[in-house]
Amino acid sequence: MTTRPLFASAASFALAVNLVLPVTAQAAPDEAASLQAKFDSLISSADQIKWLRDMSSEPNQVGSPHDKANAEMQLAQFRKWGWDAHIETFKVLYPTPISTTLEMIAPGRVTLGGQEPVVPGDATSDRTKGAMPPYLEYQGDGDVTAPVVYANYGMPSDYDELARRGISVKGKIVLTRYGGGWRGLKPKLAQEHGAAGCLIYSDPANDGYTEADSYPKGGARPASGVQRGSVEDMTTYPGDPLTPGVGATEDAKRLTRETSKVILRIPALPISYADASKIIAALQGPVVTGTERGALGMAYHWGGKDTVKVHLAVKSDWSLKTIYDVIAVMKGSQYPDQWIVRGNHHDGWVFGAADPLTGQVALMSEAKALGELAKGGWRPKRTIVYASWDGEEPGLIGSTEWAEQHADELRQKALIYINTDNNGRGFLSAAGSHDLQHFVNQAGRDVADPQTGVPVLDRLRAKILAAHFEDPASVPADLYQSAKAGGDIAIGPLGSGSDYSAFLQHLGIASVDVRFGGEDFSDGSYHSIYDSFDHVMNFDDPGLLYGAALSKVVGRLVLGAADGDRVPARYSDFAGQVKTYVGELGKLAADQRTKDRALKELTAQGAFKLASSPSDPTAAPQDRGVTPLFDLLALQDASDRLLQSAGAADAMLGNFGALPPAARAQVQASLGQIDQTLIDPNGLPGRTWFKNLVYAPGTLTGYGAKTLPGVREAIEQRRWDDATAYVAKTAAVLNAYSDRLDAAVKAAGTAGD
Amino acid sequence: MTTRPLFASAASFALAVNLVLPVTAQAAPDEAASLQAKFDSLISSADQIKWLRDMSSEPNQVGSPHDKANAEMQLAQFRKWGWDAHIETFKVLYPTPISTTLEMIAPGRVTLGGQEPVVPGDATSDRTKGAMPPYLEYQGDGDVTAPVVYANYGMPSDYDELARRGISVKGKIVLTRYGGGWRGLKPKLAQEHGAAGCLIYSDPANDGYTEADSYPKGGARPASGVQRGSVEDMTTYPGDPLTPGVGATEDAKRLTRETSKVILRIPALPISYADASKIIAALQGPVVTGTERGALGMAYHWGGKDTVKVHLAVKSDWSLKTIYDVIAVMKGSQYPDQWIVRGNHHDGWVFGAADPLTGQVALMSEAKALGELAKGGWRPKRTIVYASWDGEEPGLIGSTEWAEQHADELRQKALIYINTDNNGRGFLSAAGSHDLQHFVNQAGRDVADPQTGVPVLDRLRAKILAAHFEDPASVPADLYQSAKAGGDIAIGPLGSGSDYSAFLQHLGIASVDVRFGGEDFSDGSYHSIYDSFDHVMNFDDPGLLYGAALSKVVGRLVLGAADGDRVPARYSDFAGQVKTYVGELGKLAADQRTKDRALKELTAQGAFKLASSPSDPTAAPQDRGVTPLFDLLALQDASDRLLQSAGAADAMLGNFGALPPAARAQVQASLGQIDQTLIDPNGLPGRTWFKNLVYAPGTLTGYGAKTLPGVREAIEQRRWDDATAYVAKTAAVLNAYSDRLDAAVKAAGTAGD
Repeated sequence: MTTRPLFASAASFALAVNLVLPVTAQAAPDEAASLQAKFDSLISSADQIKWLRDMSSEPNQVGSPHDKANAEMQLAQFRKWGWDAHIETFKVLYPTPISTTLEMIAPGRVTLGGQEPVVPGDATSDRTKGAMPPYLEYQGDGDVTAPVVYANYGMPSDYDELARRGISVKGKIVLTRYGGGWRGLKPKLAQEHGAAGCLIYSDPANDGYTEADSYPKGGARPASGVQRGSVEDMTTYPGDPLTPGVGATEDAKRLTRETSKVILRIPALPISYADASKIIAALQGPVVTGTERGALGMAYHWGGKDTVKVHLAVKSDWSLKTIYDVIAVMKGSQYPDQWIVRGNHHDGWVFGAADPLTGQVALMSEAKALGELAKGGWRPKRTIVYASWDGEEPGLIGSTEWAEQHADELRQKALIYINTDNNGRGFLSAAGSHDLQHFVNQAGRDVADPQTGVPVLDRLRAKILAAHFEDPASVPADLYQSAKAGGDIAIGPLGSGSDYSAFLQHLGIASVDVRFGGEDFSDGSYHSIYDSFDHVMNFDDPGLLYGAALSKVVGRLVLGAADGDRVPARYSDFAGQVKTYVGELGKLAADQRTKDRALKELTAQGAFKLASSPSDPTAAPQDRGVTPLFDLLALQDASDRLLQSAGAADAMLGNFGALPPAARAQVQASLGQIDQTLIDPNGLPGRTWFKNLVYAPGTLTGYGAKTLPGVREAIEQRRWDDATAYVAKTAAVLNAYSDRLDAAVKAAGTAGD
Repeated sequence: MTTRPLFASAASFALAVNLVLPVTAQAAPDEAASLQAKFDSLISSADQIKWLRDMSSEPNQVGSPHDKANAEMQLAQFRKWGWDAHIETFKVLYPTPISTTLEMIAPGRVTLGGQEPVVPGDATSDRTKGAMPPYLEYQGDGDVTAPVVYANYGMPSDYDELARRGISVKGKIVLTRYGGGWRGLKPKLAQEHGAAGCLIYSDPANDGYTEADSYPKGGARPASGVQRGSVEDMTTYPGDPLTPGVGATEDAKRLTRETSKVILRIPALPISYADASKIIAALQGPVVTGTERGALGMAYHWGGKDTVKVHLAVKSDWSLKTIYDVIAVMKGSQYPDQWIVRGNHHDGWVFGAADPLTGQVALMSEAKALGELAKGGWRPKRTIVYASWDGEEPGLIGSTEWAEQHADELRQKALIYINTDNNGRGFLSAAGSHDLQHFVNQAGRDVADPQTGVPVLDRLRAKILAAHFEDPASVPADLYQSAKAGGDIAIGPLGSGSDYSAFLQHLGIASVDVRFGGEDFSDGSYHSIYDSFDHVMNFDDPGLLYGAALSKVVGRLVLGAADGDRVPARYSDFAGQVKTYVGELGKLAADQRTKDRALKELTAQGAFKLASSPSDPTAAPQDRGVTPLFDLLALQDASDRLLQSAGAADAMLGNFGALPPAARAQVQASLGQIDQTLIDPNGLPGRTWFKNLVYAPGTLTGYGAKTLPGVREAIEQRRWDDATAYVAKTAAVLNAYSDRLDAAVKAAGTAGD
């Protein structure tokens, strides 16, 4: 579902702990290496190209014949490769458009919207029969005619800017552009501000001609390209909107569309910049300057003059549809009840070649190779579960329903969830649970970059260092420091936007998301009919060389986790990262307090009034009070303890292989599901489905992660009581994590006595 | 000639010395206040509007009938107002275009260039008979047909980017855009890189629809607007290209066009973005991304594929022309040989309404008011010289030739030079010699802002604080600190771009440049036919309210300097600023060394090669060696001494009024021309005309100042021997300044004994 910016994901610096720990203390390293080499030899870009061409040959959105056919094809393949595979179905609310209408009726009548046109040289762009037209899943339906207000990214700061100019969106249609925050927040915030409807368009500043030539000359989004997508309120809960917390089985107890909290009440549509530019050219009101304007070749105006009117009508079929998850199991020989789960989704918005199929065909390569290894007599120690999810695009539905349906078993058995999604040419990009940071880095050291031949981790390091040299501000300082130190490169935390959410944030299963990118142009075709086999082959991953590289990286994770002597974690990485996050909270509160006080003082002095320009009069920003002082001591104590406990546990694990079998079992029992201690059963304020108190998607970022979210978002959103309450709750889960580490150390120590 | 960004000029922080010194220790403050009030009452926006309409009614570039008529009208006015006025003429090289040709010949034939079209609602845009067509003064003439390469701002870093992509400009026509550095550097650097010609266009990112609606709907530059200008190499020397260092009198010894160092050898023309977009749309080669692209609604390409060819031909009449400086003198009653010089220019590029006439009519208001005061019996203690310069636009010619012609007398008599140029609605903006910082701030405390009624200094403070609140990165930290501290607001150093250069940088006369701006849109009409009375009245300074405010601010400077008991300087401000500059040099050298070492290391590691993208392959940046360590001790010592000496002098001046007359005379003798100690007669490396070792325009910024330029530019430009040599030379001039301060303190002390 997502494309992730190369550097934005690593917001914080993991301590460069220079412990040289054998992470996956393999019993016989030579044997593991030879197995891995055999695995690599079975990975084939040619296979992937063949699958990609076939799977992206017809529209494959949820409910389409080709989506089901792809699931069945995969089922057959998994079985052919020797896996114990089946399809698991769920019945989910998945509205499909009956009609979408968009027209400008003032200052002149212009018909807008409709399906994207055929592009010469793109072999599938004329195969849109049965395809999803431009549409936003879980918008609210309706028929409205209203003036338009431009709201830039449609984020809270944009509404602040409108308010300072005295422009209300009440009863208006809000025109927003993609970027600056997750799609679903745009109509949600518009609705909260009283808007009657919402449009979201793709400005060329974000994925168009500012980056590359327009498709098909280059990979950038053409004037007619439209980004479909879901606007389910996934920051409240993802998955089927009618069955939060439980699997959407045939007989599940269901909410109604009206009682579900994650469905919009206002109509919304995505549009192209060819369409949006006609509206923007007609808007009046103050001129939009700076970063709030896009890259169309004209002046932008905020509107508010009611001279531009648009008619927006959406009518959908709100019936339940069936989704098809393909689940393939290879049972473990030694620890069959310890599961390594690995998934990617197979549903797209139209052809879905880059998103999700570049990742999906990499997964299939891995499954084929593992099957071959098994046919050769190898069996994993632990059970490997491969999953090809359906319904990710509308709301991570396939993974979420499956995780909810099998929650108890997963809590007991799942050690790790490994996710991929769209993949492209470029640099390794990993995010996830920080106790897995070293594990992922090890994999990156061991796989060669297809273009340069150096390890993909080395190429990533070179990119970070070169980018920092050219523009230090372009690289987060902590990421640069980790790259420069020469050891592991910091991984980012996970927010949302792909299928790890239910595993990591609902169940607390240690998760990692891996992909390549940064030299692809899949942003330009993202969720449009131009996300095609041709686009991928020309602009995103020619030859699927990085598809093969992804299979090899993930193969190391799967084999390492399934065959290693222990959980492949390094706890000091997590502890160091938590320490950084706790420090950030203190700074956040202090900076916010300083800013609040400055606002109060400057407003009292009349500074904003005096500074206001006659050509764009603006009122002072809204005074929201002064952030109080917070006592973060409990969190700081818990973080300090965590550092100590993690250090001791890592030291103990350095000798894991030497422990007697009973002690090893005890250590494994303490650490196997340790990330689940980060779960608070009551979850986060206002969104109890999200239970992980270290990692969550931000309610005002959507895909972007918020770490220590109970405290961080409470401070940001000025819920002071929540902030205090979640300091204690978050400290408690960190202490529970430390308890497990201490128990493991104790078990090992007792054994050694 | 220039418009100055609101905050960019104050690059450094003046120590907020909280001494409460009576700066212009007036003998009778009440009398001075009453005189000032009378002065204010004589300032009339209506006068200014009348003069502006008349003076901008016809093209008034150098050599035009209306330029001469404006000089004669002013002469008559000055005389009418009671001044001893005359016109002083010089004969200067001022080429005028005989023909300018621009056409794209491949991929298709398109005629480009020519005069700007009439705009409805702009009353003078149809009066272009005899007007200067789009032209660059002192380009090199020629007739070339060559492929085009896009070079962004045409600054050194842009050529680095081209080189990294293997694109040469040798024999090509370089297409550059305005911004990022002074106009004249663009063809100069193109020529140095072997280009056959150069075009400069106005991208809408810089002064077009990204800022406002296009003229005449708003004040932004329309698609057809062209910025004329001079490309004389003014960073080597300004003024008549044939008579550096001496007045261009009828019989002056002259260089030839061929032997002058400040005239280009290649043809160059300025063009509109309507024209440029036709070239840009046809260019091929790598896509330009990030800040190197402009805001046209299309992909930009660097070129280098030779698919776009342009025919550029310029032929000029290189004869000498006459310029007309109007000089008006009001003799001082007590100190006739102490001169207060105040100037603005009267020549424009076409109608010149905003630039320069908004400033010129403010000057005329002051002169009229001073004349009235004189008619009422007042006489200034010191001599006041009002100057209306001609030929500023082609190269500060009127002021430079006059200053060169009268150099000896000015060195002996001039205490201060006060400059203005174009003026507009908004905020007070001052730059100049830092010993005048407090003096200027005092004036700003005393004049009311026309829109809000608060002192203009308070409104500026409010703007700085509000801008910092909204985006701290938008305000230089030191400027913010000075504003927040509540005392004086830091003024910026002077580079070039208006008539102060000869006074400050050639002769060492303490200078200050004052204007209002930031809420005008004169960037959008700058040096085009749309710089008209209508544009000014609608978008730049409606009602010329800020014209009146400017007269009042400058009136305080003129009256304060002319009538005060002593030179209105506070030396600690200068000393604190120098201390900051010296600190910057240390940081500059250290940062550059760090960066050089990083480049060497990363290149050796192959990081740039590994990071290079297949869609835009780039080589490593050029390794230019490692910046050595510099011993700045002599400068640091001189700066520390300066702080001490200045503190002692300021303390002494706090009791200036109590000193016996002989001591006062001795103090005045020491301090009157103290800024001339900053002159080194040998000047700066490679440009000996610039002799001030504290303030200079940058050779690679043009208008932007370089402080301590002998050392700073030597480090930046990697001339290590010059850096070392100029540490000593710069320390010497600072010590000479301290010597004067010490002598003044000694003289006062001796008197007090």
